[in-house]
Amino acid sequence: MPNDTFWTTDPSELLRVRPGFDLADQPTDGTPGFDGGKTEGQDALAAGRDKLAELQEKLYACGREGDTRSVLLVLQAMDTAGKGGIVSHVIGAMNPGGVHYAGFGKPTPEELAHDFLWRIWREVPSAGQVGVFDRSHYEDVLIGRVRQLAPPDELERRYGAITGFEHELAESGTTIVKVMLHLSRSEQRKRLAARLDDRTKLWKFNPADVDERLRWDDYQEAYQIALERTTTAEAPWFVVPADHKWYARVAVQQLLINTLERLDLEWPMPDYDVEEQKRRLAAS
Amino acid sequence: MPNDTFWTTDPSELLRVRPGFDLADQPTDGTPGFDGGKTEGQDALAAGRDKLAELQEKLYACGREGDTRSVLLVLQAMDTAGKGGIVSHVIGAMNPGGVHYAGFGKPTPEELAHDFLWRIWREVPSAGQVGVFDRSHYEDVLIGRVRQLAPPDELERRYGAITGFEHELAESGTTIVKVMLHLSRSEQRKRLAARLDDRTKLWKFNPADVDERLRWDDYQEAYQIALERTTTAEAPWFVVPADHKWYARVAVQQLLINTLERLDLEWPMPDYDVEEQKRRLAAS
Repeated sequence: MPNDTFWTTDPSELLRVRPGFDLADQPTDGTPGFDGGKTEGQDALAAGRDKLAELQEKLYACGREGDTRSVLLVLQAMDTAGKGGIVSHVIGAMNPGGVHYAGFGKPTPEELAHDFLWRIWREVPSAGQVGVFDRSHYEDVLIGRVRQLAPPDELERRYGAITGFEHELAESGTTIVKVMLHLSRSEQRKRLAARLDDRTKLWKFNPADVDERLRWDDYQEAYQIALERTTTAEAPWFVVPADHKWYARVAVQQLLINTLERLDLEWPMPDYDVEEQKRRLAAS
Repeated sequence: MPNDTFWTTDPSELLRVRPGFDLADQPTDGTPGFDGGKTEGQDALAAGRDKLAELQEKLYACGREGDTRSVLLVLQAMDTAGKGGIVSHVIGAMNPGGVHYAGFGKPTPEELAHDFLWRIWREVPSAGQVGVFDRSHYEDVLIGRVRQLAPPDELERRYGAITGFEHELAESGTTIVKVMLHLSRSEQRKRLAARLDDRTKLWKFNPADVDERLRWDDYQEAYQIALERTTTAEAPWFVVPADHKWYARVAVQQLLINTLERLDLEWPMPDYDVEEQKRRLAAS
């Protein structure tokens, strides 16, 4: 359900990956379901911050009182698609005390000496937390596939391992939201060029980014396969057009708000006698 | 140095624990060094968010390029003094991707089976991060002392163990800022009462909070001892009056801004040829 007047159609419905999905058909520069432009998008993002923060506090409160539920946002994208901005502008609205952020980079030797899900398991959210994966186990079927970092049968095995892992998480109370920020190749060139033109952004650029960019089509194919094979009712994928940063942010914020609202959270009831505690406090 | 016109005197100087310090002499309801009231305090907090976020991004960027420095904020306080608000309103301004938050509750059996610093070491910030300890190793000489959770000689040993630990951290590049939010006993009663009057806050109240409150003087004594024995040039304590939430927030924000500014961070220089990468990018 749309949560404010800016949304004409629920992005959870519009952006969800469905049977027959073809990534090549998905626009990167649209703003589906949102009634407005950049200014309205920024207003909606600002308005959504408090709502998201309150829902997250409720989830945290429930977790403190024995509710085992949690939420996990998985973010995947090509370089410059805006993961960092989502973390800063959307996730940043929530209390850091209730958010578990995990960024997954190039695996360490210790990580490589384990199953690919080993490092992932260590970072799953605990009860009451909102977890955020900035890159994730999907790297192992994205760059893993494009760069042939594992034998073909191991790569093939991983799709099932991923849905099994996500099923286990869902069973233990974690609601999983998987987002691919979908950027156009030309917009990526602009954004990389902008980094090279700004001395405060040079550190964000890595020559390897261009190497990966040269394999654009291979990555799109790897995403297509990963999305169609791992989107499930309990861990759906959403493809969010990302050429407009403001849209991607407000859309991911709304996906999170919807997810938390559907948990139908209530402020926990006290397990103590409130009036008795008032008396004790007054006497203290 | 004051960083904007609201500060008449640098809070890093005003609030620092010095030789001869007596906690009983420290006001809880003052707003030292700040020229203004709640409205100006909120304005200053809002203005400081972007500054803090930029400094943190610079620290993160440096960490990515091999700089080993990091920052650690240690927060200690009696219940309701406002740690949660600091985390949400001050720390929340920074990118969650560069912040490492760790809350320390009652130790688990596994934690108790190790030295008291074991669980602390596991959560220290890595290069480029801002770490936040919401409670910390100081609990082991605060509630540990008041409740006699360890033998007297072990409690005595811990002060030296703490300064040794913090020295090691400082040597490895971590700048440590330790903050005690200093609340009055009467203000605590008001805040606990407010929790009992608000159905969305009942989960934050625990009858044990009143038990601890009844040992107020013992806690103040334990803080006095901890502060005077563990404040060092490399890991100073700051006592922040906390009866006014707005003041505590803007003061801690300013302490962090000062700390980061003193690191004299520069945006990293690229280790690649910018013009060459522009050409590669244009051709891609």
